[in-house]
Amino acid sequence: MSTFSAAPTALIVHAHPEPRSFSTAQMTAATESLRAAGYRVDVLDLYADGWAPVLAREEFAPVDGPFKPQAEQMRAVREGTLDAAVRAHLDRLLAADLLVLSFPLWWFSLPAVLKGWVDRVFVMGGVFGGDHGLFGQAALAGKRAMLLFTTGGPTESFRPGGAFGPMDDFLFHIHRGMLEFVGFEVLEPVITYGPARMTDEERAAALDQVRQSVARVAAERPAPVG
Amino acid sequence: MSTFSAAPTALIVHAHPEPRSFSTAQMTAATESLRAAGYRVDVLDLYADGWAPVLAREEFAPVDGPFKPQAEQMRAVREGTLDAAVRAHLDRLLAADLLVLSFPLWWFSLPAVLKGWVDRVFVMGGVFGGDHGLFGQAALAGKRAMLLFTTGGPTESFRPGGAFGPMDDFLFHIHRGMLEFVGFEVLEPVITYGPARMTDEERAAALDQVRQSVARVAAERPAPVG
Repeated sequence: MSTFSAAPTALIVHAHPEPRSFSTAQMTAATESLRAAGYRVDVLDLYADGWAPVLAREEFAPVDGPFKPQAEQMRAVREGTLDAAVRAHLDRLLAADLLVLSFPLWWFSLPAVLKGWVDRVFVMGGVFGGDHGLFGQAALAGKRAMLLFTTGGPTESFRPGGAFGPMDDFLFHIHRGMLEFVGFEVLEPVITYGPARMTDEERAAALDQVRQSVARVAAERPAPVG
Repeated sequence: MSTFSAAPTALIVHAHPEPRSFSTAQMTAATESLRAAGYRVDVLDLYADGWAPVLAREEFAPVDGPFKPQAEQMRAVREGTLDAAVRAHLDRLLAADLLVLSFPLWWFSLPAVLKGWVDRVFVMGGVFGGDHGLFGQAALAGKRAMLLFTTGGPTESFRPGGAFGPMDDFLFHIHRGMLEFVGFEVLEPVITYGPARMTDEERAAALDQVRQSVARVAAERPAPVG
């Protein structure tokens, strides 16, 4: 934080339990690609760090009466009593020009550990509400965010009329409800469909594709100077 | 499980950290309403029970090599080695004619503790995949499910063209991706918008409304005999 740097910063928040998974390899490939594009890359590995995802009364200063999560978040921001881990992650989030959420798509959404990162770190009063508004008036307006994930099912199941349903429709709650809500401009997601069924050669080719896609998406608009 | 009963069973899975919250009062109102309609009601209170939502290697029998969550779920079902808490919750899920997910809408989705209940309990090989298929061929086909939740924002923000976006679009990942995926017929959700801004009189009226809505929705189709 004390080092001057003109390079933009990318924060990758990763959520897969297995370091040898394709999802983790995909995160590593994205890291390399962003570094090659001139980004300083900050990686948060939620499983490796043992992130506790359950928003609860215990993380806030004691208070009488019913626990109201958003009211407590507002108060903690105002009084400087945010939980130390939440404060540290919030600072890393606010310092990033580009946020990348990296995960396996579980139940057409984020794994619980990553959902609970949003529940706890997207603090009311810290990124929206209070001194901030919503969407274009929220704290992360002007910043960009993208999803980087894997699926179990094949591409065709996620097409309109496919067996599952359109991918964009599944992602709406994340793109609109989480990322745009706090101000981010949402970039095209980078998705690898069904890596579990790939041969080693196909997996290597898929990782090359991830490197190229991440580089292309990250370059879509000049990154703001950090 | 050993008691014969012709009454249908409802499983309510509740996820709010505060027993005195409107969300918890809403869950209690729904319980009363379902009992009055002849249901046996089983309540799972995830915050009170300290449910651990993070799907991880440690809950499975030791295995060499990379941890592949769905493969381990399939193996645990086959070998009878599912984690005891997961097995118990899965049995309660399979025994229910009606599933009610009760929660505050956090980030246009489930709170992490409830998302992690789905991640861990909607076991591959136990409710879909393996001997089961997907959707109409999954284990919960013929059963019904409904969402019961509160929002922070007002009704008008969730209308088409509203400030946030259409509620149905936000719920698609839950309705289609979680509930229909494992076979449930999805009932109309019961929603209280913005209880935090209500007077005591308005809250009481809203709880009456919940009782009536739950009774109406639960009666929409004759419940299957358990």
